[in-house]
Amino acid sequence: MKSDIILLGHGSGGTLSHQLLDTLIIPILSAVALPDQNDAAVLPAESGRLAFTTDSFVVDPIFFPGGNIGDLAINGTVNDLAMAGATPLYISVGLILEEGLPIADLRRILHSMRQAADAAGVSIVTGDTKVVPRGKADRIFINTSGVGRLEHELVISGSSARPGDRVLINGPIGDHGMAVLASREGLALQSDIKSDCAPLNRLVQAILAAAGSDLHVLRDPTRGGVATTLKEICLQSQVDITLDELSLPIRDNVAGACAILGLDPLFVANEGKLLVVVAPDSADAVLAAMHATPEGVGATCIGEVGPGGEGRLRLRTAIGGLRSIEMLAGEQLPRIC
Amino acid sequence: MKSDIILLGHGSGGTLSHQLLDTLIIPILSAVALPDQNDAAVLPAESGRLAFTTDSFVVDPIFFPGGNIGDLAINGTVNDLAMAGATPLYISVGLILEEGLPIADLRRILHSMRQAADAAGVSIVTGDTKVVPRGKADRIFINTSGVGRLEHELVISGSSARPGDRVLINGPIGDHGMAVLASREGLALQSDIKSDCAPLNRLVQAILAAAGSDLHVLRDPTRGGVATTLKEICLQSQVDITLDELSLPIRDNVAGACAILGLDPLFVANEGKLLVVVAPDSADAVLAAMHATPEGVGATCIGEVGPGGEGRLRLRTAIGGLRSIEMLAGEQLPRIC
Repeated sequence: MKSDIILLGHGSGGTLSHQLLDTLIIPILSAVALPDQNDAAVLPAESGRLAFTTDSFVVDPIFFPGGNIGDLAINGTVNDLAMAGATPLYISVGLILEEGLPIADLRRILHSMRQAADAAGVSIVTGDTKVVPRGKADRIFINTSGVGRLEHELVISGSSARPGDRVLINGPIGDHGMAVLASREGLALQSDIKSDCAPLNRLVQAILAAAGSDLHVLRDPTRGGVATTLKEICLQSQVDITLDELSLPIRDNVAGACAILGLDPLFVANEGKLLVVVAPDSADAVLAAMHATPEGVGATCIGEVGPGGEGRLRLRTAIGGLRSIEMLAGEQLPRIC
Repeated sequence: MKSDIILLGHGSGGTLSHQLLDTLIIPILSAVALPDQNDAAVLPAESGRLAFTTDSFVVDPIFFPGGNIGDLAINGTVNDLAMAGATPLYISVGLILEEGLPIADLRRILHSMRQAADAAGVSIVTGDTKVVPRGKADRIFINTSGVGRLEHELVISGSSARPGDRVLINGPIGDHGMAVLASREGLALQSDIKSDCAPLNRLVQAILAAAGSDLHVLRDPTRGGVATTLKEICLQSQVDITLDELSLPIRDNVAGACAILGLDPLFVANEGKLLVVVAPDSADAVLAAMHATPEGVGATCIGEVGPGGEGRLRLRTAIGGLRSIEMLAGEQLPRIC
């Protein structure tokens, strides 16, 4: 690259665009040879149903403890496919770059994307790059869309929770949101809180194998955190869920940071966590299967679906009370993903 | 909607987000019911190969004569799938909204997206919405990704052009770029130049039916225009292409505006045009098939692939000379799509 920052011309479609694509973006992300570059990727036929998802990432700051906007963007879409019970296969990458972005930052982000894709076993097969003038974006925004294959006939959906089901999670909550917040605000507590950003597709395969048709809902509690995601499930399935406060896993440093800042960890974003709603007879087998995977060693049961069907989410507190949990109106923490 | 502008909280994942999705975005774009909203869309199994593409749209201004960022985003991805010879099926929509965007503008854009999707026969099946603070984006950016089905075994690729092939186009060049530029700069000429933004998938079906395996390349000359797109084909296929200046279709008002502004219409973006590289024996049949479709009435032959194989693009000028055409380094017109 002749320039060490992104120029408007890098988005022109002309030789500067080709140079950026041919010497930086494509070699790092996918290694497609020049003659094979076309407007769309052509992929093999797939047996079984398909899953298709999209997510844009605008996190601020773009680098934070435990990850950056690049691996976040890959893992986020891998996980959305996994939450449908699909095997993630193909990812597209749409970059919106602000004029002036250091090429070194872009290179670091692209390398993180490729590493995350390799770790999750997905291929980056198509992409697009736009450049906007200084002040018209914030360094880099990334859209990732994904295609996956469903190898089963199960209906895994937010509307499938049933009375008696158990609610499981694969580890401590709030790490991603607090890592990003601490990094953004330059808080001293940032040193020991890291994002949990991770691909969950292999954990989902283990859960599917253990639960079969007893698996009712999978959701990753990202924006809005565990509370918002469970409230959505309550409303979609028209069931009541009761969480047990004492069984909620949360790291001391995250709990401490939340207490200082007046934030409720139940509403803080996660990027490597999933919620499993499973029939009670399979709960122990699923927990055992989760414990046997790297992403599931901290798995635990945090609540259950009650007999009622009014869409209520409640917390059984440490002193034995029942507290109703509603969604927040707006932002606890903006631009967390 | 209680607010008439986009607030940061509309991107929070909380109740404001749900209100925006449930009362505006989802009813207009896809009409998915609340209980069916999940992280990924689950789609039927498809026989045959798949095509997958992505594109982000950052056009300025967001409304221009002949279209807006919404129908541009749908048609752009429909056309990228069509250029692979695929039948476009499913579209994802990723919105990045700037705080303060008028809800009325968003509603107008969403309606245009749905109308464009209906016109092209594709379904919007999944989406994502992010909000960034004022000054961190420019009103609205849209990513669309698309999945299509290939119903044939042809290899339609920029690397498939062969000596002797004819180069066809379906109508006049430069309309989109000049419409956007005129609208952005408030030029008086804007009154009579309109974007050619249109879906090309049905035109492609007609071309496929007429050409079969004689169809070698399909490309839509968007960013960089006809010249950049043909130069890419020259390089990918390692062939020489010669254009005939007198046969290039261009409207008088576009030619006049280009002359005044010192722009070369060969490098101006189109959003409803395609270039066809086809074996000579099928060229007339393909032209006839194109003429029988609404998007192809202006189809004409503009050049041919010569015997040489050095990746050169040349223009036979009106006075009989041969002028070499190279890609531009950077921008003639930034943020054209």
